[in-house]
Amino acid sequence: MEGSAEQGLIQRHFAPLARSPGALGLRDDAALLTPPPGHEIVLTADAVIAGVHFFPDDAPKDIARKALRVNLSDLAAKGADPLGALLVLSLPDEIGDDWLAAFAAGLDADLETYGIALLGGDTVRAPVLSVSITALGSVPTGAMVRRNGARPGDAIVVTGTIGDAALGLRCRTGELPGDEALIDRYLRPRPRTSLAANLRQYANAAMDVSDGLAGDLDALLGASGQSAAISVYDVPLSDAARAMLDSAPDLLATILTGGDDYEILACVPPGSLPSLATAASALGIPLTRIGTVEEGTGPARFVRTDGSELRLASRAYSHL
Amino acid sequence: MEGSAEQGLIQRHFAPLARSPGALGLRDDAALLTPPPGHEIVLTADAVIAGVHFFPDDAPKDIARKALRVNLSDLAAKGADPLGALLVLSLPDEIGDDWLAAFAAGLDADLETYGIALLGGDTVRAPVLSVSITALGSVPTGAMVRRNGARPGDAIVVTGTIGDAALGLRCRTGELPGDEALIDRYLRPRPRTSLAANLRQYANAAMDVSDGLAGDLDALLGASGQSAAISVYDVPLSDAARAMLDSAPDLLATILTGGDDYEILACVPPGSLPSLATAASALGIPLTRIGTVEEGTGPARFVRTDGSELRLASRAYSHL
Repeated sequence: MEGSAEQGLIQRHFAPLARSPGALGLRDDAALLTPPPGHEIVLTADAVIAGVHFFPDDAPKDIARKALRVNLSDLAAKGADPLGALLVLSLPDEIGDDWLAAFAAGLDADLETYGIALLGGDTVRAPVLSVSITALGSVPTGAMVRRNGARPGDAIVVTGTIGDAALGLRCRTGELPGDEALIDRYLRPRPRTSLAANLRQYANAAMDVSDGLAGDLDALLGASGQSAAISVYDVPLSDAARAMLDSAPDLLATILTGGDDYEILACVPPGSLPSLATAASALGIPLTRIGTVEEGTGPARFVRTDGSELRLASRAYSHL
Repeated sequence: MEGSAEQGLIQRHFAPLARSPGALGLRDDAALLTPPPGHEIVLTADAVIAGVHFFPDDAPKDIARKALRVNLSDLAAKGADPLGALLVLSLPDEIGDDWLAAFAAGLDADLETYGIALLGGDTVRAPVLSVSITALGSVPTGAMVRRNGARPGDAIVVTGTIGDAALGLRCRTGELPGDEALIDRYLRPRPRTSLAANLRQYANAAMDVSDGLAGDLDALLGASGQSAAISVYDVPLSDAARAMLDSAPDLLATILTGGDDYEILACVPPGSLPSLATAASALGIPLTRIGTVEEGTGPARFVRTDGSELRLASRAYSHL
């Protein structure tokens, strides 16, 4: 295809999404971005690949949303307010204009929802469909919430419910009985963007839960040089997940290690916890304390109500 | 593979490249970047795919360099000084540690050469090898060189020589006799980073030549609402390209439309041309005037020495 065909595709489907002046209508070779005064840029990049992170026959608008939202979830966990995104789209020959129109519509709706701009990117032919997004946000200088700030005594909290998306994936493949609510959680992550400002105000450390609660918690604690005790009973579950777990207790490992949650995992000084809880409640975001940071090294202990420790064969799922 | 395996791979191969404090050692979920005071961030993203933009058996260090340099070339053409890059690496199963070590070494050398930082990214398993890079640079606020600023009477100049990489690709595939100099131009673009400050001082419009001189010139003129006359004779050729063209005049179309040049195409007011030429010469960068911007719309006319117009069947090559 000619360069003019690529430019035509971009102007047809994506230029209408590039509403920021800095995007230059996707008609230049680069975009411009200025952080608000007194702010730094926060950058993250995540790719989703057909057959690895999503099913090739997923709805194009869901693929667009997931690709964007997994990145916005990273920004939210860092306390960053989203500014914009760059999109690298690798398209197999069988992807036509209808698919692209639906993909662009899904992306457009999300850009509106999250108040951000498409700034630029690249469109290339490739044997496999993939969507690689670089998302940019801003924080007041010095205010990014790091992984490595957890201190002994911090309350460990998570937003929303854990395990739904991992169960939803197994519903989607037919391994588990189909449950629309769980499949929805797998297909459509809900980044906790609105909580960002409160996280930078109250949290010592945070990250989003993408590779499974157990593994991500280990990563955060490892970066902080701490350990933790987690009350398995307190890990918040949706009604659907609870019902599945009641009938198949083995699913607990899936829930704690399956990933794709895109909830926030944060460590909060006890004195700040009430303020964060109040703020989350006002935003309609469930926030649950699941444990406490402890001095020491080594992975978090997942403790049952009888005091026994739950052993997880694998701590995290990775697509790699 | 486990999340810890991905993290291990990143720490083994890429963390040593993340020398900027804002990269946080690739141990967090995001990176930080602050533009220098009075500057804006310039953003560009380009992907290269095995079998489309490079050969799967190209040396890993060359793949790394090309993926980075095509992005740095965009920044240079915009007058931006490079700051850093994010890397999304999609890896098939057969890519092992030796390949990654060589890829990282090539990338590392280039990060040093161009004085920039690896800021973050993502590593995913995928059926096809691809490298997607988002590059960030900075310009003094308002100084980015756009595509759309060309004015009638501007001198049209290019850096270096045109057509080498397109011929080099045809050498690489065996279509043309092997010529190491031309193959080198195809494998190893040389972004004109050092010319960025002079471009923003002297050029009305610029872009890099990546999809072929003719098509890229059309894109620039289209954005500027102008036309141009180009003297085919003045398009600068390397000795190797000149020798090939002498024996096969049909190669002129490949030279003018083949792309992968990664030279700068700029439109410069006649009064500024001597200053830009002097600056380029001091930097050791050949700069050649090939034509003049004219009022009007429509593609650039490529004019032979006898005054006849060269008709190009296709104006640009696109990988899409």
